[in-house]
Amino acid sequence: MRNLLLSLKFKGTPFCGYQVQKNGVTVAEKLQNAIEAVTGVRSDIKGCSRTDSGVHANMYCANFKTESKIACGKMRDALNFHLPYEIVVYDCREAPLDFHARYHCSGKEYMYLFHNAPWRDPFVRNLALEFGYNMDISRINRAAAHFVGTHDFASLCGAAGGAKDTVRTVMRAEAIREGEFVKMFFAADGFLFNMVRIMVGTLIWVNQGRIEPDDIPGILDKKDRNRAGPTAPAHGLYLNRVFY
Amino acid sequence: MRNLLLSLKFKGTPFCGYQVQKNGVTVAEKLQNAIEAVTGVRSDIKGCSRTDSGVHANMYCANFKTESKIACGKMRDALNFHLPYEIVVYDCREAPLDFHARYHCSGKEYMYLFHNAPWRDPFVRNLALEFGYNMDISRINRAAAHFVGTHDFASLCGAAGGAKDTVRTVMRAEAIREGEFVKMFFAADGFLFNMVRIMVGTLIWVNQGRIEPDDIPGILDKKDRNRAGPTAPAHGLYLNRVFY
Repeated sequence: MRNLLLSLKFKGTPFCGYQVQKNGVTVAEKLQNAIEAVTGVRSDIKGCSRTDSGVHANMYCANFKTESKIACGKMRDALNFHLPYEIVVYDCREAPLDFHARYHCSGKEYMYLFHNAPWRDPFVRNLALEFGYNMDISRINRAAAHFVGTHDFASLCGAAGGAKDTVRTVMRAEAIREGEFVKMFFAADGFLFNMVRIMVGTLIWVNQGRIEPDDIPGILDKKDRNRAGPTAPAHGLYLNRVFY
Repeated sequence: MRNLLLSLKFKGTPFCGYQVQKNGVTVAEKLQNAIEAVTGVRSDIKGCSRTDSGVHANMYCANFKTESKIACGKMRDALNFHLPYEIVVYDCREAPLDFHARYHCSGKEYMYLFHNAPWRDPFVRNLALEFGYNMDISRINRAAAHFVGTHDFASLCGAAGGAKDTVRTVMRAEAIREGEFVKMFFAADGFLFNMVRIMVGTLIWVNQGRIEPDDIPGILDKKDRNRAGPTAPAHGLYLNRVFY
C-alpha cells in the first residue's frame, strides 16, 4: 500500500467548491474520477480543506491510498490526462502511510486578488475582483495588522460555519500593490467559514472610510458577525499555500 | 474637430484579429460600434497595426476624429460601457489633428508567452502556449541575438505578406524565464506578416536542437521561408508596446 500526496492547482469557476456535493460538479469528484480511471479503484481522497464555490487554488493538497505501482511522475501525467482542463496535478509524491492532508496541515495561506483601476482587465475574468476606487494600501495595512495574532474571530465567521472554537492564530495579513493589481495575503493555522472573504470585505470598508483601521479590535471583541464588513465575492480568492 | 488617441488592451480569442473583415467579428468593428454608440457618428478609426486572429494586445493604439465634446476620461468610461468584455480602453487623450496611429508609429514590441512545465496551467487557457519540454534560455538567446540589427527578413515572412521591402530593424529579441513561464520579447521598427510567430517557431527549433544558434544568419541570407521554423500559434502572442 502507498499513500500518495498530490499538489494541485485549479480554476474554481466551473466547480461548486472542492468537497463532493450531491447537486453540483466539484473538484473532489473530478479527482476521484481521474484516480479511478488511472488505478481502476475508486479511492477515498483526503483533501486539505473545503473551498467555496468559485474559489481558486494555486496550491491544494490531497492524499489517497493505492495499491497501484505507477511511478509518481507517470501518475501525475496520467491524472492530468483524465482531469478537466481547470484542474492540474503539478506534483505527486510518496507520503508516510499515516499522512492525512487535512489533519496534518499546520496552516494555510489565502490570496485575494483585486484589479484596481477605473477600467476592467480583459485577461482576468472570474480571476480577480474588479475594484474601480483607489485602494489606500497603507491604510488597509494599518487595519490588517490588527488581525495578526491569536484572536477570537467569531465576528468574521459566516453563519453556516458552526465552529465551536472560533479562536485562530493569524500569522500574516497584508496588502501589496503590483501595478494595477492589489494582492491581499492571509496566513493562519486555520480559517473559519468565509473568514478570509469577511476579512477582505471589512478591509474594503476600511478603504471606503466607513470604519477606521483602529476599529478592528473592537469588531473582534463584539463577537458579532453584524459588526464586520460584507463577504467579498469568491472569484477573487485563491488558496495560495498549504503548510505541513 | 478633435483627434482622440485611444490605448486599448484586448483578449484576441473571440476576434478575427483587429482589422475589419467581411466574414468575422473584429476588434475594429466593435470599436467602431462603441464610438458610434457614444458619439452618434460612425467614425473612420486608424489602428496602429493589423493583428492575426486570436492575438492579444497589452497595448494597442488607435485614433479617430470627432466633433464630440465629451471629456477624455468620460469618453474612456463610455466606450468601455459599450465595448465587449474582452476589449478595454485604458487611456484616451487629445492628439494633434494630423496624428495617425499607423503612419506615426515608430516601432512596436511583441511578447510571446509560454507556459513551460510538464503540466498545463489552468489559469492561462488561450493566453499562453503550453510547452512541456525544457526551454534552454541561454541557447535560445544566443540564437535570438542574431535577429537584432537591420536585416532582410524575407525568410521569416508568411506567404500572404506581399511586402516589397522585407528589410526591418530589430532592436530587441530575447527570452526571459519567470518561474514556469517564459516570455520572448521582440521590438522592431516594423514587422512583416507572421514575422514574430516565425521567429518564435525558429527559436523553438533551436531549443529542440534541430538547428544551431549560429545557423540564424544563414537562414536570413537564404531569403527563403522554407529555411525557417514553423509559425508559432497565435494564442501566445501579445502586441506589448507601441512606440511614437
